Amino acid sequence: MATRGGKLFHRIKINPPQFFALGFLLLIALGTILLMLPIATADRHHLSFIDALFEATSAVCVTGLVVVDTQTTFTLFGQIVLLCLIQVGGLGFMTLTVFIALLLRRNISFEERHLVKESLNQDSYQGIVTMVRFVLLFTIICEVIGTIILGIHWGDEFGYPKSFYYGLFHSISAFNNAGFDIMGDFSSMTAYVDDPIVNLTLTSLLLLGGIGFIVVADIFQKRKTRKRLTLHTKVVLWMSAVLVVSGTLLIFLLEYGNPATIGNLSWNDKLLASYFHGVVPRTAGFNSLNTADLTLGSQLVTMALMFIGGGTGGTAGGIKVTTFAILLFAVWALIKGKQEVNIRNRRIPGDLVFRAFSITTYSVLLVSLFVFLLAITEKGAALNYIAFEVLSAFGTVGMSLGLTPDLSESGKILLSILMFMGRVGPITIAFALAFRIRKTAVRNPEERIIIG
Amino acid sequence: MATRGGKLFHRIKINPPQFFALGFLLLIALGTILLMLPIATADRHHLSFIDALFEATSAVCVTGLVVVDTQTTFTLFGQIVLLCLIQVGGLGFMTLTVFIALLLRRNISFEERHLVKESLNQDSYQGIVTMVRFVLLFTIICEVIGTIILGIHWGDEFGYPKSFYYGLFHSISAFNNAGFDIMGDFSSMTAYVDDPIVNLTLTSLLLLGGIGFIVVADIFQKRKTRKRLTLHTKVVLWMSAVLVVSGTLLIFLLEYGNPATIGNLSWNDKLLASYFHGVVPRTAGFNSLNTADLTLGSQLVTMALMFIGGGTGGTAGGIKVTTFAILLFAVWALIKGKQEVNIRNRRIPGDLVFRAFSITTYSVLLVSLFVFLLAITEKGAALNYIAFEVLSAFGTVGMSLGLTPDLSESGKILLSILMFMGRVGPITIAFALAFRIRKTAVRNPEERIIIG
Ligand SMILES: [K+]
Ligand SMILES: [K+]
Repeated sequence: MATRGGKLFHRIKINPPQFFALGFLLLIALGTILLMLPIATADRHHLSFIDALFEATSAVCVTGLVVVDTQTTFTLFGQIVLLCLIQVGGLGFMTLTVFIALLLRRNISFEERHLVKESLNQDSYQGIVTMVRFVLLFTIICEVIGTIILGIHWGDEFGYPKSFYYGLFHSISAFNNAGFDIMGDFSSMTAYVDDPIVNLTLTSLLLLGGIGFIVVADIFQKRKTRKRLTLHTKVVLWMSAVLVVSGTLLIFLLEYGNPATIGNLSWNDKLLASYFHGVVPRTAGFNSLNTADLTLGSQLVTMALMFIGGGTGGTAGGIKVTTFAILLFAVWALIKGKQEVNIRNRRIPGDLVFRAFSITTYSVLLVSLFVFLLAITEKGAALNYIAFEVLSAFGTVGMSLGLTPDLSESGKILLSILMFMGRVGPITIAFALAFRIRKTAVRNPEERIIIG
Repeated sequence: MATRGGKLFHRIKINPPQFFALGFLLLIALGTILLMLPIATADRHHLSFIDALFEATSAVCVTGLVVVDTQTTFTLFGQIVLLCLIQVGGLGFMTLTVFIALLLRRNISFEERHLVKESLNQDSYQGIVTMVRFVLLFTIICEVIGTIILGIHWGDEFGYPKSFYYGLFHSISAFNNAGFDIMGDFSSMTAYVDDPIVNLTLTSLLLLGGIGFIVVADIFQKRKTRKRLTLHTKVVLWMSAVLVVSGTLLIFLLEYGNPATIGNLSWNDKLLASYFHGVVPRTAGFNSLNTADLTLGSQLVTMALMFIGGGTGGTAGGIKVTTFAILLFAVWALIKGKQEVNIRNRRIPGDLVFRAFSITTYSVLLVSLFVFLLAITEKGAALNYIAFEVLSAFGTVGMSLGLTPDLSESGKILLSILMFMGRVGPITIAFALAFRIRKTAVRNPEERIIIG
């Protein structure tokens, strides 16, 4: 199968990342058409092509930025179309990540093959089937549990069986890190700021979906065999914990005296809301506080978390926690004057450090470019509003200071492009670098220049 | 001498970058004391410690951000103190850069030694003397020519010999990329927006000072011997030209219809003002338009140019054009799926690419941290105002949207620290990496993680 798949790619002259991007584009096109159907929108209120394209892109890329309110604009049909796009987009991303890795395993380095193999304990056709089954099973279990908890909890408020539909929608949205909600009037979870069940269920789902199934597979595996976890798993778990704790703490401290957000809440609710807002930027896109009311400091913390994102091979976006971890340890090595990057008594290979730097540089340039372009198309919009929406789109987060629904047509098109690039970009680069053709043609002579 | 110098550093247990930073700190301390003297300020208006520290740091680091207006606050004595700090700071930075390189030439790689040697045509004690003489001579010639041109030009306006003092002050300020002015009321060059002589003299001076004397030395050298210029020189010249042209063009396009800036000027003056504002962010800090009136797009272009800065070993700040060039070519190689970074048929060594990434990452993290800190200390300030001043301080530029004089005490201290770090940081890192001790202790076993 691996060989057959490899041959197929070879024959149609398309490389796996391109194949992957193409699949997403087709899904977005299908979604756009479906969302433009009159039965998709309430009161037969036809959606414009650009709005439908934006919504479909946002759903497929599990971003969650919306130009219209989901609950009031879409019919049940429209909402289910969105839900399907989210589920296929999220699952597709998760499975394709390793599908590609397995397909091309002959070209990847021994260490990487070993890592994928160790995580999945398979490296054949059987491996792909096992992996897809594992991802599907894990997804379904998480989403079903979420649906049941939320469905029962919301029973009084929405009545049965409607409460289960609400539970299903928000569970799928949370697990896939999509951040779409059907609470109406762009309100997201603001009505549940002090509701621990809603807060904890949603954050658990989005963390499980966003951590990356490579980590989940490794943990399940090692629980049986009692072998040590891979460095990858340890880094993701540690880094995620550090980010959740520091995000929560920073939001708590920065909003403590802000009456528009948590200032007037009880101590417990202050903590709950801070925790929620420390977690959602990576990269779920719900909000229980009015994001635009956050202090500029909290908005910047949120932007940083959105840029970093979640784990590789999950539903999260951003440059990924592992990339960020390598950056941090590389800068630390720099400060200490060390030549090599070490994490927890393990040396990180130089090419991996190079890749982490490349992905980050590409991402910073991309984000900067789009901030600049939106500063031109959205006259009068403040920089924090523009930067926030751009980082939200890039990190496929979906949080908003409220600018997105008011965007110009060009602005909507720009953000659609960025949502797509934010979703497929980093993984494409990572793969391009990993599977880079080793053969060297005639090399140029070397010459140094002076920098810094 | 090289050996003696090396032994000296070894004996006092301080490495050259630390020695360099210490010298700057002592100079700042001296400047702070002098500026706090009653005779330094007009009407015996005593400067507070924090304001004096800020001004001294800004002068020594040739930044040009000011918390008080230079002309109305300082006496002639105070202004001359500032001028001396600027000249010593600028010259010191230029000479120390290669002084360190020559001192440690035994530890630097063969290629780098060759590059420094080729640029200076010397690699001994004689080399240091030649180099310092060359830098001094070049500085004096440029500043004298600038003083004469501006002194004559401003004769009618200020009267002789005062006009020559004005010429001297602004020539020194321009050549050293300091951006201090004595035009009063924070007005900088706004009165001369349509004056080609002032505009072209100042931009020529700041470009000559900012391009880095390594390039100047190389050009002087090669003009005699008719050999090909080093790749370093070519990259600096090309990249500078690209940045000047694209900066000018972008400002022109973005401000064309803005009546608060160039909207009501003639076509020629529009171009002149755009050229001035395309050049000054790298990193002179003058302005002929009211910076706060620029469109957000132009402000962002300015911020990007401030971050990039000028040439290594000159008076400019920022990550430097060579660093930026390597980044661009590295991302380009990435997109093309190439394994190596090539510029103009020359291969850039991997460790140099790694250094460029490191400097940039460190800089982005530093800038982000300070934007965040100022967002906390400066309540109510808009993000573009904060980001602009932070990038201006980091890049030792000195342009301002007007926030600096209104900063809180903590804000002033933060920006002082950042001006210092922006000046000594990138070069310290570059040297630390270049002279990194090669010996490897017990190495950790290698392990890969998955990123992107
Ligand atoms: K999302
Ligand atoms: K400056």
